[in-house]
Amino acid sequence: MTFAATILTLYPEMFPGPLGVSLAGRALEREDWVCDAVQIRDFATDRHRTVDDTPAGGGAGMVLKPDVLAAALDSVEGGRPVLAMTPRGRPIDQARIRELAEGPGVVILCGRFEGFDERLFEARPQIEQVSLGDVVLSGGEPAALAILDACIRLLPGVMGAPSSGAEESFEEGLLEYPQYTRPQEWEGRTIPEVLRSGDHAKIAAWRKARSEDDTRLRRPDLWERYSGARDQSASGARRNEEG
Amino acid sequence: MTFAATILTLYPEMFPGPLGVSLAGRALEREDWVCDAVQIRDFATDRHRTVDDTPAGGGAGMVLKPDVLAAALDSVEGGRPVLAMTPRGRPIDQARIRELAEGPGVVILCGRFEGFDERLFEARPQIEQVSLGDVVLSGGEPAALAILDACIRLLPGVMGAPSSGAEESFEEGLLEYPQYTRPQEWEGRTIPEVLRSGDHAKIAAWRKARSEDDTRLRRPDLWERYSGARDQSASGARRNEEG
Repeated sequence: MTFAATILTLYPEMFPGPLGVSLAGRALEREDWVCDAVQIRDFATDRHRTVDDTPAGGGAGMVLKPDVLAAALDSVEGGRPVLAMTPRGRPIDQARIRELAEGPGVVILCGRFEGFDERLFEARPQIEQVSLGDVVLSGGEPAALAILDACIRLLPGVMGAPSSGAEESFEEGLLEYPQYTRPQEWEGRTIPEVLRSGDHAKIAAWRKARSEDDTRLRRPDLWERYSGARDQSASGARRNEEG
Repeated sequence: MTFAATILTLYPEMFPGPLGVSLAGRALEREDWVCDAVQIRDFATDRHRTVDDTPAGGGAGMVLKPDVLAAALDSVEGGRPVLAMTPRGRPIDQARIRELAEGPGVVILCGRFEGFDERLFEARPQIEQVSLGDVVLSGGEPAALAILDACIRLLPGVMGAPSSGAEESFEEGLLEYPQYTRPQEWEGRTIPEVLRSGDHAKIAAWRKARSEDDTRLRRPDLWERYSGARDQSASGARRNEEG
């Protein structure tokens, strides 16, 4: 099955862009995914092809018109999740990326300027407002490229080894463990002894401990959720033993 | 002053890519910023130009060799912050973007495969490991493009109106308020009355309240920090009045 990506944008020339090379580019050649960039401006109805206007109530910048965006969105094939990239959205996470990658594709709406007219989201409630991290971009396009890249690498056959996806950051609510490779010694620093032991159980335990340590230190937010869930399942197990 | 961006990557052809058009593209033409993409592979020393090797301790994928990456990094002009894009990093935020945009530029190291050999970060402690949201990409390049875009739009003269940066999401620890523009009525939905009142104080109060409501609902994490800081400054003010 081909993953169908449609991007609604004022800059269709940005796509596939960086996704036309490397892993995603080879997947595009094989038609593991298709990339359709739709010019929002084609759905403007006045002779100036206006897509934006000044913010109601005043303020800097321009706001994308709801009628033009809705017409663009209504024109694309349905049956796929619709994301709008906006810093006002909920942060997208790896679990949602995995769901998207298992589906038929995705439609991504890229804002520019001061963003979307809010009525678009009331009138088209299927739109999921998502953000990619707490930074403000000049438009949704770089975020859309990142989200597509994250989906594409999970499509069947795209990554070399099927296990590459399973042991990575966020998959168990933890950061991935640190990695090492040859040379054995570099600038006086050696690969940790345990990784050269050949003892698979010891290696797995060391990696788990390092994942937990690094998550606690670097991502207290993830750690809180992870350790909360772990405590709950432990107390659930106790209840079952007692019952 | 020109903002100097250097990207260390196995895919230099991805840059400037989408940053060559629109706002960032015009800024590039004006030389508000320069983009130098360095091929990591040029710093490999064997005749196969090897940049990666299998993970010590086993596992899927390949790990980028520390010696090659360090040689590439050591070759670039210093005096700029160095970021490595990795899901193991701390999430970058708008405050850090603003700091970067005020500086001389940035060096961004893009991983691929299973990531970097951890010794690189021990031996080059100036490297900041950062992530852009909780998703896993096929490489750091799409994240680097997003971070550069976020910096570039803040460079002096790049955005049209100088106030565009100040009233947006994350700047006060809140999401931005919702926006509206013409038509006044669309699909039976009207622009909120207050925004048509011309009463600037009332509009500002409405926008603040909507920012707070949406942040509380959509981003409990931001809301907790924001309301904690507000309570603290309120109790500080009370102490001052009492004192």
